[in-house]
Amino acid sequence: MKLDIGVGTMPVKIENDRVMLIDQRFLPEKTEYFDATEFDAMCEAIRVMVVRGAPSIGVAAAYGLAYEADRLARVSKSRDEFFKRLSESRNVLDATRPTAVNLIWATEQIYKMSRRIFEQEGTEDAALKSVGEKLKKFAFDIMQEHVRVNKTLSDFGAQVIEKNANVLTHCNAGSLAACGWGTALGVIRSSHLNGSGVKVFVDETRPRNQGAKLTMWELSQDGIPATLVCDSMSGHLMSERKVDVIITGADRIARNGDTANKIGTYNLAVLAQFHGLPFYIAAPLSTFDPELESGEGIPIEHRDEREITAPDGACVTVSGARAYNPAFDVTPAKLITGIITEAGILRPDYRDSITRALSTLEKKS
Amino acid sequence: MKLDIGVGTMPVKIENDRVMLIDQRFLPEKTEYFDATEFDAMCEAIRVMVVRGAPSIGVAAAYGLAYEADRLARVSKSRDEFFKRLSESRNVLDATRPTAVNLIWATEQIYKMSRRIFEQEGTEDAALKSVGEKLKKFAFDIMQEHVRVNKTLSDFGAQVIEKNANVLTHCNAGSLAACGWGTALGVIRSSHLNGSGVKVFVDETRPRNQGAKLTMWELSQDGIPATLVCDSMSGHLMSERKVDVIITGADRIARNGDTANKIGTYNLAVLAQFHGLPFYIAAPLSTFDPELESGEGIPIEHRDEREITAPDGACVTVSGARAYNPAFDVTPAKLITGIITEAGILRPDYRDSITRALSTLEKKS
Repeated sequence: MKLDIGVGTMPVKIENDRVMLIDQRFLPEKTEYFDATEFDAMCEAIRVMVVRGAPSIGVAAAYGLAYEADRLARVSKSRDEFFKRLSESRNVLDATRPTAVNLIWATEQIYKMSRRIFEQEGTEDAALKSVGEKLKKFAFDIMQEHVRVNKTLSDFGAQVIEKNANVLTHCNAGSLAACGWGTALGVIRSSHLNGSGVKVFVDETRPRNQGAKLTMWELSQDGIPATLVCDSMSGHLMSERKVDVIITGADRIARNGDTANKIGTYNLAVLAQFHGLPFYIAAPLSTFDPELESGEGIPIEHRDEREITAPDGACVTVSGARAYNPAFDVTPAKLITGIITEAGILRPDYRDSITRALSTLEKKS
Repeated sequence: MKLDIGVGTMPVKIENDRVMLIDQRFLPEKTEYFDATEFDAMCEAIRVMVVRGAPSIGVAAAYGLAYEADRLARVSKSRDEFFKRLSESRNVLDATRPTAVNLIWATEQIYKMSRRIFEQEGTEDAALKSVGEKLKKFAFDIMQEHVRVNKTLSDFGAQVIEKNANVLTHCNAGSLAACGWGTALGVIRSSHLNGSGVKVFVDETRPRNQGAKLTMWELSQDGIPATLVCDSMSGHLMSERKVDVIITGADRIARNGDTANKIGTYNLAVLAQFHGLPFYIAAPLSTFDPELESGEGIPIEHRDEREITAPDGACVTVSGARAYNPAFDVTPAKLITGIITEAGILRPDYRDSITRALSTLEKKS
């Protein structure tokens, strides 16, 4: 199966019926693939961030559960046994990372689709025989749909970038994170292709440096002018009028527009407001969590403190030092100028605009 | 000559008539001393940040110019030749780092004192013979005075830290930076000794990680509870009410209270205001630049972009990447709750309170 539109570097690919993930821990030094076909390998890959970025985690999880379903269908003797085991695996996968909603969104899609397949097939036996291949095809459709959605939202988003604008972005919301084209970086890429002359400041994004490693690499591959800065320099850049607009991705968005994204995003939003600069979130509708009224309910993942005290194994501070390592923060809706989605740019009042956008989605499915 | 009050680790010490600087580039891994007795070595030590922190740079520069004067006095044939050469050396030293005003403040003290010595001595010959030793003694007095000033301002500052408060600080404004006791960290240390139960969040302070390396080390030596965080986590900490007060040092303060300090300080000040938290600067009066009406006139040092792209020689981003590396930013006075000095805690309107504080200083000298 081949994707039918051009994209950046895909973080997930299927080769000889194996699920291969580009190992994002080693970029940009080397381009290595991680075989995540086995279910345990996929869980580990998500946990240790071989694959990261909310939409990419979603696509990887869809493949992960589809391949697991394929295996379970072959060893299960009944519909009940199959769904019992599939549920168990789904729970394990859902728990690998708590903040991004795309992960549980994707496993829900696979689960729902397997129910539908069992309904459509005449017999249990026929369903157990066909469900694996059908789910793998469905996971591919999800990936393909991600790319299309990214492209659509990027075209909407390109409108907010003026000629020769300087954009500041945080973390990596490119094709690696969004599984093709990108969200925040997709907007920048589309703007660049339109000949806007956009230039980008890229936050290092401590502690894992996804900006320095992944975003700088993607921008360099596309020939888009980029300058690396430390996360602490954002206010200075804004006060010197070197930045015109701030755009980041998102890991989970509540119904009122409160947005969880990589730690440091909230600082940018506060600073943008202080300087009267527009602050945009770019994310597909699969990032919205219709169950959540506000950002207060978003679970924030806390990662190992050694990501800060000993990032490459060797201690970079005084020995025995403690660190605090939340992976995400929540930006309140009132600091967000607009949320760029495939249904257009949502504006305040977000409770209204998000509800309307999500209802178009429900009609489609 | 021995200091007459107890202090933390002194960044400058005199041993067998040699000027020895603790090499802060290698802390906390190893405690190594750098011989900066020769003038060129001292200039290099300031430039490459063997010694850093505005007050410590001032003390080091005072010793640097005193030892250079000692040498020049021995090779100069007249008062005019001596002062011509001393002026040249002073200019070289002043240019090693542009932002901290303590550097030029210190070289001015040495220069003025050498003028005074020539006035007081009966003959040119007698002055040329005595000036070297007298200036070395004077440099020691400057260092001793720094420690005393630090202690005094720290006692004032300790009043703003409430029982069991959580303080967030940035960079290193401890004994290493302030040449004994510390400014921002001196305030924390004095508060701790008063039994306040203070706890500290320490910003890594990219790109050179002085927080992770130096501040964490100093706090650990004093047994003060400390937690390392990334610079990008400050807003999240404040929004979760984990921080009660923010205190940093300063590199140069204008007459209106605008304050240059390590890049990232400005972000903290904006975030503190947004969260309704107090933001204090702690700095001796030698950090104030009476020539500067506002922060607009403060020269901001831009350092090599490789501090960000290849901090230890190896590239940490895509090869050929550009970076932007301002070492300082300017926090406008309106974001500063108070400036903690040896003359008390200055409050807005700063133009008034600073003028009054500086006039007490002028009366003394």
